[in-house]
Amino acid sequence: MQSSAPGIDRFYSVIPAGGIGSRLWPLSRADAPKFLHDLTGSGQSLLRDTWDRLAPISGEQRIMVVTGRAHRAAVEERIPELADHNVVLEADPRDSSVAIGLAAAILERREPGVIMGSFAADHVIRDTRAFERAVVEAVAAADAGYIATIGIAPTEPAVGFGYIRCGAPLDLPGAPSARLVEHFVEKPDIATARGYLADGGYFWNAGMFISRASLLLERLGATEPELLDNLLELAAAWDTSRRGATVDRVWPRLKKIAIDYSVAEPSAAEGKLAVIPAHFGWDDVGDFASLAKLHSGGRSSDLAILGENARVLSDASSGVVVSQTGRLISLIGVSDIVVVDTPDALLVTTSENAQRVKAVVDALKLSGRNDVL
Amino acid sequence: MQSSAPGIDRFYSVIPAGGIGSRLWPLSRADAPKFLHDLTGSGQSLLRDTWDRLAPISGEQRIMVVTGRAHRAAVEERIPELADHNVVLEADPRDSSVAIGLAAAILERREPGVIMGSFAADHVIRDTRAFERAVVEAVAAADAGYIATIGIAPTEPAVGFGYIRCGAPLDLPGAPSARLVEHFVEKPDIATARGYLADGGYFWNAGMFISRASLLLERLGATEPELLDNLLELAAAWDTSRRGATVDRVWPRLKKIAIDYSVAEPSAAEGKLAVIPAHFGWDDVGDFASLAKLHSGGRSSDLAILGENARVLSDASSGVVVSQTGRLISLIGVSDIVVVDTPDALLVTTSENAQRVKAVVDALKLSGRNDVL
Repeated sequence: MQSSAPGIDRFYSVIPAGGIGSRLWPLSRADAPKFLHDLTGSGQSLLRDTWDRLAPISGEQRIMVVTGRAHRAAVEERIPELADHNVVLEADPRDSSVAIGLAAAILERREPGVIMGSFAADHVIRDTRAFERAVVEAVAAADAGYIATIGIAPTEPAVGFGYIRCGAPLDLPGAPSARLVEHFVEKPDIATARGYLADGGYFWNAGMFISRASLLLERLGATEPELLDNLLELAAAWDTSRRGATVDRVWPRLKKIAIDYSVAEPSAAEGKLAVIPAHFGWDDVGDFASLAKLHSGGRSSDLAILGENARVLSDASSGVVVSQTGRLISLIGVSDIVVVDTPDALLVTTSENAQRVKAVVDALKLSGRNDVL
Repeated sequence: MQSSAPGIDRFYSVIPAGGIGSRLWPLSRADAPKFLHDLTGSGQSLLRDTWDRLAPISGEQRIMVVTGRAHRAAVEERIPELADHNVVLEADPRDSSVAIGLAAAILERREPGVIMGSFAADHVIRDTRAFERAVVEAVAAADAGYIATIGIAPTEPAVGFGYIRCGAPLDLPGAPSARLVEHFVEKPDIATARGYLADGGYFWNAGMFISRASLLLERLGATEPELLDNLLELAAAWDTSRRGATVDRVWPRLKKIAIDYSVAEPSAAEGKLAVIPAHFGWDDVGDFASLAKLHSGGRSSDLAILGENARVLSDASSGVVVSQTGRLISLIGVSDIVVVDTPDALLVTTSENAQRVKAVVDALKLSGRNDVL
């Protein structure tokens, strides 16, 4: 594709495949996290969907997956094309500054000047062409010296996402839509969200960051110098026989901090962050309400059914059913219901209560029922 | 017990154990009907509860169970004391006139003058002593030449039961509460039911009939002479080597008709029916709403949990959970919910929709999914 676009020949995709997705329990589990599931009905996992979106942009030899050791086999099963050197295994989860920062440090050592973009493994994007166009612009903005992010034009006053406040157009070569980021805002209340939607200058923060690896590391070092040192130490040993010993020694002291706080927000404050506003139908499918909406096309009278060989008999019911057992599931007169039927755990709730699922998972953790987590 | 009470020494209990209980699907099944389940939390089946209530009255050598061939093993497992000659196996279900009429015909041949009482295998009765007292009075009324029934004093304006309209006191020896039955009334609407409750002269028809076997047969013959002939033919062969051949020949032509229509209502019209009004906490546990109420003590904020080793995690939820799988069941923010979790079928509905469960079963039948029925 657009190989003439600024920076695109130096572009490398990074897919941090972490996050269990607790609000999608019991579908999403520690040993079967959200990104390994088919939540769209595409017939393949969200991770594979993500890979398939990025491969035409960076080439499939230039996609790195950062994931937990426990998920290596599952990841490789879903992406047989994934080269060994493109798998970065985390000893244990250390939040996004580590996942993305380590990838940046390894890539920059291997290929100085590389431009990297990080894209969550478990988001849903409808319009692949529009996504590609946005990434190409973001790469151009990165090539021009910015940390670029892709801002999703909001389609409703969502309270479950953070927002990006747009500033002036930047007029960058190859990135005509790029604008300065004024600041990030945390998840708003509904009145504020309505205001953002009406304003038109606010975009959803989808956590996609594209920049020169060197710039990302520099910005990380400005706020978290110790963390940067640790990541550089890991990267220096990564492609050597010292990797294992270095991971064992350094990993336990890695600070857990979201890249939003270590890099994105401070960089925005210093005018270093660009945003590419985009409209490509995006969802993080963060909970079952979101999953139901994704499949009902917004019609609340519909019943969405997910799962191979699902057998559902529904009478005057709506919501979402996730079936992993092949059992007959019969619903009678239940609206906006959420039923998740897995071999060892069953969840029954409603779309309205979708955000409370995480609390149940927390309660299960506290009571030591790790067998179902 | 009261062996001096009129007729009690000639009393024989009959338990028709038929009826699948479709409105309790998927708990109740063709191969595991309602009477084989523990719905009270007593630790034993409703059938066994019924047996245990009757044994002190008639003696355990004088209780006959009428059931389907397919249930023989399950019945005998629950009642090891059950003597072979007290098991009457139906070739296929033919409604209550056959189940009760055949028992009457067999018992009358074996023991002319016997008084029999028939009691459903799957009802719940709280106060066993009050039940005993009512049965003893009913036997006395039967001894005095009536078909006696036990009328349950209504505790609410139920629309799910038929009612018995009481007439004048009968002043029978040993049956001081016996009154004439004026007539039966079908399930009323709610306004009518409220009127019945306020009137005080109406009782729930629990389908318990106590009479001389000979009288019951005589009354059956008055309305269904052909059916009576068939039952007498079966009974004549029952304790002989001709039983099998006779069943094969006669069974297919047995008419299906409820004993309410063949015997009870016509007898009431002729002043032959007595009722013993009783207060012993009765429920037919006909559907999941009834089951939920049984276990919540009427408090709608409660969540009732049935099933061995049930693992339920509930947050702001109420209703009833029946667990047969040992899976973790998590409920969040669902009110008056009904969740029935069995190895091959899952039902999710609400108490309000409990009556609609039968329609699902009918739909499953029509679509040939007999594997889960």
